[in-house]
Amino acid sequence: MTKKIVTISGGTGGYMLLSGLKKYTSDISAVVAMTDNGGSTGELRDELGVLPPGDVRQCLVALSEASTELRALMNYRFTEGGLKGHNFGNLFLSALEKTHKNFLEGIDTAMGILKVRGRVIPVTGSNADLVMELGNGKLIEGEDAIDHSLFQKEGVKKLFFKTKVKANPVAVQSILNADMVVIGPGDLYGSILANLILPEISEALKKTKAKIVFNANLTNKKGQTEGFDVDDYVTEIEKVIGKGCIDFVVFNTQKPAVKLLQKYKEQEGTGFLVEFHEKKKNDRSFRLIRGSFLKSGEAKGVKGDTLASSRSFIRHDSDKLAEIIMMIPELRKYDRIMRKMM
Amino acid sequence: MTKKIVTISGGTGGYMLLSGLKKYTSDISAVVAMTDNGGSTGELRDELGVLPPGDVRQCLVALSEASTELRALMNYRFTEGGLKGHNFGNLFLSALEKTHKNFLEGIDTAMGILKVRGRVIPVTGSNADLVMELGNGKLIEGEDAIDHSLFQKEGVKKLFFKTKVKANPVAVQSILNADMVVIGPGDLYGSILANLILPEISEALKKTKAKIVFNANLTNKKGQTEGFDVDDYVTEIEKVIGKGCIDFVVFNTQKPAVKLLQKYKEQEGTGFLVEFHEKKKNDRSFRLIRGSFLKSGEAKGVKGDTLASSRSFIRHDSDKLAEIIMMIPELRKYDRIMRKMM
Repeated sequence: MTKKIVTISGGTGGYMLLSGLKKYTSDISAVVAMTDNGGSTGELRDELGVLPPGDVRQCLVALSEASTELRALMNYRFTEGGLKGHNFGNLFLSALEKTHKNFLEGIDTAMGILKVRGRVIPVTGSNADLVMELGNGKLIEGEDAIDHSLFQKEGVKKLFFKTKVKANPVAVQSILNADMVVIGPGDLYGSILANLILPEISEALKKTKAKIVFNANLTNKKGQTEGFDVDDYVTEIEKVIGKGCIDFVVFNTQKPAVKLLQKYKEQEGTGFLVEFHEKKKNDRSFRLIRGSFLKSGEAKGVKGDTLASSRSFIRHDSDKLAEIIMMIPELRKYDRIMRKMM
Repeated sequence: MTKKIVTISGGTGGYMLLSGLKKYTSDISAVVAMTDNGGSTGELRDELGVLPPGDVRQCLVALSEASTELRALMNYRFTEGGLKGHNFGNLFLSALEKTHKNFLEGIDTAMGILKVRGRVIPVTGSNADLVMELGNGKLIEGEDAIDHSLFQKEGVKKLFFKTKVKANPVAVQSILNADMVVIGPGDLYGSILANLILPEISEALKKTKAKIVFNANLTNKKGQTEGFDVDDYVTEIEKVIGKGCIDFVVFNTQKPAVKLLQKYKEQEGTGFLVEFHEKKKNDRSFRLIRGSFLKSGEAKGVKGDTLASSRSFIRHDSDKLAEIIMMIPELRKYDRIMRKMM
């Protein structure tokens, strides 16, 4: 039986996760945050009044079974003239929004053209802007500004939407009907919490019978989550979706190559790896799944895969990650057998 | 047996022709001029250094069997911000050119996505700029300038390319292998002669065993072909491809509605309808096919068909036009029978 899987992730990690999962199941729903306002995406939002296409595009490409050429086209960035900096795939999604009743219907057409395995579901069809309130009362407005701010010293008091935002009922329903919801990897604020702070989404995560899996990031973000360990992430997420909500936590224990570690240390300082401290707690309400999920070798430019190749040096191996996640239901079966035998 | 048909046409008329022909045969090759340098197309040529996508896009949409939504997308024009005036389909073809070896290979991918019946073949893969030399020695450079100039008084001395342009061998081969080549409708200079002045193309038209059909325009162009009748067009075309080269001439004899005629007269003056004067000649080397090919009623906005609906009020009925053209091979069979009986 095909397992119904929902992902709530973002960035390169989310791309790797979806690329891996699609080999195992066609019943994947990628729920995507709709708060990006940087770069080409931000320009299109401002100028055309469309919803942010960038993150949706990345998920579409990750789940696409179309030709390499078509996937390369979706990631193509114009480099000259008035179009400079615009990503073709973003223009494609914006034009689809303009020629359809709304963005959500436009994505349906895109999924057909791109032969998407599964579905890409914007978490909302509303215009959504993220605001972060810091411990000192200061507000940071917009995901792009949040992405580029250092606020760890002040601490995050609250993350919210500037205006009232309604969850996409399809996203809510997919969570309620899922067998497994995989949260992460992705930026804690811009990719993960930007979805979870929608009340209908956190409610659905509480209500669903699906197993909730948290998939920890490999690295922390300077000035935002520096020195965070696996439990710190779980704590932040459970503040929003409720304590005890997460059933499984998947994290990497493999050490990156010394050369890469050195490179990162220079750029990011120490505390950039998401570590796990076994003895920190003894009352964890989730099961731990540790493994070696690092992509071996340095990231290389792969034609048609510009996203996954250009951003991160330390990144997930999509196959290894997907394999362990797909084993989670088996693990439960094994547990049942073990219980019966004891 | 499917007849192999090549078209050399342009504009709304060309669009109607292809839309009609695709219902009869899947072996259509639309050979397209590559000299457009106006509007969104011109901007893309200048800024990105790509080949002109506009005319190719129109043919792709005409021959597309994709959904109405997808065809509407290809014709969508951005109306705000930095993208204002750009046609999405043009951006699509330009991005394909950038992500493929060249424009011709990009079109192959486009044909797949748009489920094109037949093929769209740029007449050249070279960067081509049209130059018109007038009777008074004055030069008009660029198709856009030619389109918008009044030069009938001075007369056209020569139409040529600014730099050496090599024909696309696929276009040449398709003419050589065709059963029928349909020239027109389309602007005499920018859509028809812009193809025929390529020596390899006119040579192929002389050599091919295909029947050459000239499909006359419905209306003349003010200050360019005012008062031209069917024979005048044939004369201009045969100046380039050789006298006696055309086997059939198809033209419309139906009068447009009085209301439309009045509207055109106000805008265009008299002599705007392409008429036929039977007694003007008695040595025509081609067979005449006259019929009623007018689209009845006023052109209305049809979703996904913005091109065909927005330009012309007096326009071809795609079905009627295609029907008569597809009867030409039958006509020859009938002639043979008649000859045997006499």
